[in-house]
Amino acid sequence: MMSDIEIAQGSKPLKITEVAAQAGVDEKYVEQYGGYKAKIDYSLLEETERPDGKLILVTAITPTPAGEGKTTTTVGLADGLRRIGKKAVVALREPSLGPVFGVKGGAAGGGWAQVVPMEDINLHFTGDFHAIGAANNLLAAMLDNHIYQGNALSIDPKRITWRRCVDMNDRQLRNVVDGLGGRVNGCPREDGYDITVASEVMAVLCLSRDVDDLKARLSRMIVGYTYEEKPVTAGDLKAAGAMAALLKDALKPNLVQTLEHTPAFIHGGPFANIAHGCNSIIATRMALKMGDYAVTEAGFGADLGAEKFLDIKCRMAGLIPSAVVVVATVRALKHHGGVAKADLGTENLAALERGLPNLLQHVENITTVFGLPCVVAVNAFPTDTRAELELVEKRCSELGVNVALSEVWAKGGEGGEALAREVVRLCEQPNHFSQSYSLDQGIEEKLETICKRIYRADGVVLTANAKKQAKQLESLGFGNLPICMAKTQYSFSDDAALLGAPRGFTVTVRNLKVSAGAGFIVALTGDIMTMPGLPKVPAAEKIDVDSTGRISGLF
Amino acid sequence: MMSDIEIAQGSKPLKITEVAAQAGVDEKYVEQYGGYKAKIDYSLLEETERPDGKLILVTAITPTPAGEGKTTTTVGLADGLRRIGKKAVVALREPSLGPVFGVKGGAAGGGWAQVVPMEDINLHFTGDFHAIGAANNLLAAMLDNHIYQGNALSIDPKRITWRRCVDMNDRQLRNVVDGLGGRVNGCPREDGYDITVASEVMAVLCLSRDVDDLKARLSRMIVGYTYEEKPVTAGDLKAAGAMAALLKDALKPNLVQTLEHTPAFIHGGPFANIAHGCNSIIATRMALKMGDYAVTEAGFGADLGAEKFLDIKCRMAGLIPSAVVVVATVRALKHHGGVAKADLGTENLAALERGLPNLLQHVENITTVFGLPCVVAVNAFPTDTRAELELVEKRCSELGVNVALSEVWAKGGEGGEALAREVVRLCEQPNHFSQSYSLDQGIEEKLETICKRIYRADGVVLTANAKKQAKQLESLGFGNLPICMAKTQYSFSDDAALLGAPRGFTVTVRNLKVSAGAGFIVALTGDIMTMPGLPKVPAAEKIDVDSTGRISGLF
Repeated sequence: MMSDIEIAQGSKPLKITEVAAQAGVDEKYVEQYGGYKAKIDYSLLEETERPDGKLILVTAITPTPAGEGKTTTTVGLADGLRRIGKKAVVALREPSLGPVFGVKGGAAGGGWAQVVPMEDINLHFTGDFHAIGAANNLLAAMLDNHIYQGNALSIDPKRITWRRCVDMNDRQLRNVVDGLGGRVNGCPREDGYDITVASEVMAVLCLSRDVDDLKARLSRMIVGYTYEEKPVTAGDLKAAGAMAALLKDALKPNLVQTLEHTPAFIHGGPFANIAHGCNSIIATRMALKMGDYAVTEAGFGADLGAEKFLDIKCRMAGLIPSAVVVVATVRALKHHGGVAKADLGTENLAALERGLPNLLQHVENITTVFGLPCVVAVNAFPTDTRAELELVEKRCSELGVNVALSEVWAKGGEGGEALAREVVRLCEQPNHFSQSYSLDQGIEEKLETICKRIYRADGVVLTANAKKQAKQLESLGFGNLPICMAKTQYSFSDDAALLGAPRGFTVTVRNLKVSAGAGFIVALTGDIMTMPGLPKVPAAEKIDVDSTGRISGLF
Repeated sequence: MMSDIEIAQGSKPLKITEVAAQAGVDEKYVEQYGGYKAKIDYSLLEETERPDGKLILVTAITPTPAGEGKTTTTVGLADGLRRIGKKAVVALREPSLGPVFGVKGGAAGGGWAQVVPMEDINLHFTGDFHAIGAANNLLAAMLDNHIYQGNALSIDPKRITWRRCVDMNDRQLRNVVDGLGGRVNGCPREDGYDITVASEVMAVLCLSRDVDDLKARLSRMIVGYTYEEKPVTAGDLKAAGAMAALLKDALKPNLVQTLEHTPAFIHGGPFANIAHGCNSIIATRMALKMGDYAVTEAGFGADLGAEKFLDIKCRMAGLIPSAVVVVATVRALKHHGGVAKADLGTENLAALERGLPNLLQHVENITTVFGLPCVVAVNAFPTDTRAELELVEKRCSELGVNVALSEVWAKGGEGGEALAREVVRLCEQPNHFSQSYSLDQGIEEKLETICKRIYRADGVVLTANAKKQAKQLESLGFGNLPICMAKTQYSFSDDAALLGAPRGFTVTVRNLKVSAGAGFIVALTGDIMTMPGLPKVPAAEKIDVDSTGRISGLF
């Protein structure tokens, strides 16, 4: 069997100029990065008179170690749409170097449903993440320099919230003391690093509509508090202009292609816990402008990724999806039904029946809470039995939702045609989109609404600390922002061990923080790891490049 | 008067594909980065059958606060060569973000002798420095992870020499303690950051002939020592392949153009103290392959920059320069003669006479020690008087060296024609190039040779510590490496206050370190700052970008 990188390197991509031309993009907007990557200038959005296409969101059941194949399905669906004669464009997140060198290898789809050049996409691509890291770290340097040079703003060094970042899994940097070495070398204080995808600059870039919006959001970002507990922003430090200058190219979406030459934007990649977990608004808008169908995805399961996509990103950008695809695998559903990983290859209808409520709750959330047409894509595995697939179909049909078998990993776009046809049908169905909560609600009320409506919790509990923070944030004028839930992705609840569709639980919110530039309040239900570590044998040990520049060891 | 950025933004550059085509580069080697930047694939070097052009080095007198204009002269000379009908190509270093956001603003020439697009060149360009930083920091993460995961190599955490890096002036990171926060968050140890240009990865990239050489050099880099004092390398950590994969594009030289459309490679930028301070060997070789005259520069004054260019880079790459340009200004020479900065605009022949020995010693080093044809370029200022210029000419002619007035800042290539004609003449003169010391000499002997022949010191003194280090390095097999002097750039001596051409001093070497990947021994004569800080009002506060992506505030 061929590995992902072998399939990718064996493909014959079109020149990116040709991909752009076929998508109707005037060459004046195309900034080539080598032969097979390009940045597309955002002025295209203002200058192109073309009605937007239909927006398709691909999301998934609650993730399990068995894997779901959300990106693969997104890519294969777009290729499938293209094969049935539709003009489709993909919009995805950019991979971080952290997982590439850690455990995961590549992150650009899989099998015959990939985006290429996968090596470049996985290995700092067009440099966007480094630009984001540089902007983040310029702000940090200007902040510490401000304190060092006299601290005119009276920033309390013990209340600095801005952390430095690097696009790398480096646990050694989680907690540091910097500014050591005496008077000329800074001011000693506790500090720490996040991985770049967790930087608020990443979320800001992905939620900005244009350069002016980017600058305004950067300016609003809070870096810490004064001795009088007043917020200090990047704007106060006069850092926003230079940060935006560093980001001027990173703000332009990257165009690549699928193995079947479908145009694909890959742009931005905020964390899906402390941020909203989907590609940039500009890339999504560009995909809508260029395609009759724009296929995009959101991080983690639908309780986190789709909820934030719909409640945060669509709300800020004024987007209305036409259909939602919920990806599931029979294996993962059996895992939700209590089957150990080693036994997932054996038919087990009882376990499947026990696991199915997880899928059904996600589906119901899409159709009932958000009012959107929905299809379940079962990402096919050779071990799936006919009886198992029929059971999934039966339970979904009871909710009025069809199931399409997706064989895109093995067959590419051909394996996505059935799904594509159902998506096209759904796009013509009535659409009753609404967000799951209103911004007018108080912070606690919004939290309760999400926990009850989406997670089906009995309610939400705020710690004393979180209650105090909620009051403070409301008094600072942040009460009407949307909520960004930072919760385990492995359960509807805040307990990773509760698989399936748990009931009779409450969600505890321990911390509330504002991301004032991104424009949401982050609700932390536990410790969220914002700087991963490398495993005992990092994937990096196997990655290599030969004398011609050809990469190996990504998978 | 127009600022540098106004001149640059008012220019009409050619498409980079056209610049490459005019230089005879087949389009298959050209990887566009937008319309006006490209990377050129290194396979061009193997596949192009064209005799190499002449190599011209531009260096300078000992730097002063008055400024010399080395990059400006390099650019203007190439434009001048082109105006007199010669095929010239420039090879320069890439600017670091540190000075851009600190005090200096841009670093891409000045006036009418600039390389463009200057905003992009100054603002992380094609991402090379971030790639170098990522490779550096991947190695750091793998090193700490190795210790965390059981430390099979028995690395002594107190003898780690590898530091993390970021392309930013951030004094807060000079000295840190990382790995804090308990058992799951790493192992607490002292650590620190350098600016990316000070990373050994930068020097390695710039000295590598191809991908295989890059990988071999990366493998040899020493990250620390075991409890038994044995060196531990990046190769031991199995990091070199992934690091090289991160660097696969960074290894390709960047092609841009001067304001007058002369092709210019801008590639790599190692520190000129703890490293060798010139652009990559691959870029220089490419400039030689494409031009009849390849004009390049070296960092700081000729005692550091030219010495390392000739003794390290040319030796490793097998290059023989055909002529050397030593840039001086009347103002700077008067400063060497003891005139305060405020009075440099007034004619002062006595001070000039006192300062001239600085220039003459640099010139003599080039002609006598290195055996190379030399010309002095006086970078013209409006305040220079006829008598002052004549005095410079007179003293230089006594050494058999001509002076050319360079007016490239004000007039572009036209102002460089006189210099260009002299350079062309020199390239036909006899060339007796030899390095200033032999690799066979012992470490102390090499140090003494450099200090006596180049600096005209009475000798070199090694501290007890340095003596011990020299023995250790020789016993580890590093005795035959060239020396990279890390000395103040403001004096021939190791005392920044000794201007002009001091005599009767000795140089004290306090530390010796091997850069085993770069392939040289760094001799530190004092504390060398490898992480600058921001000034009270950072240049970043003035930098901005408008809604169309246009940058302002670089100067």
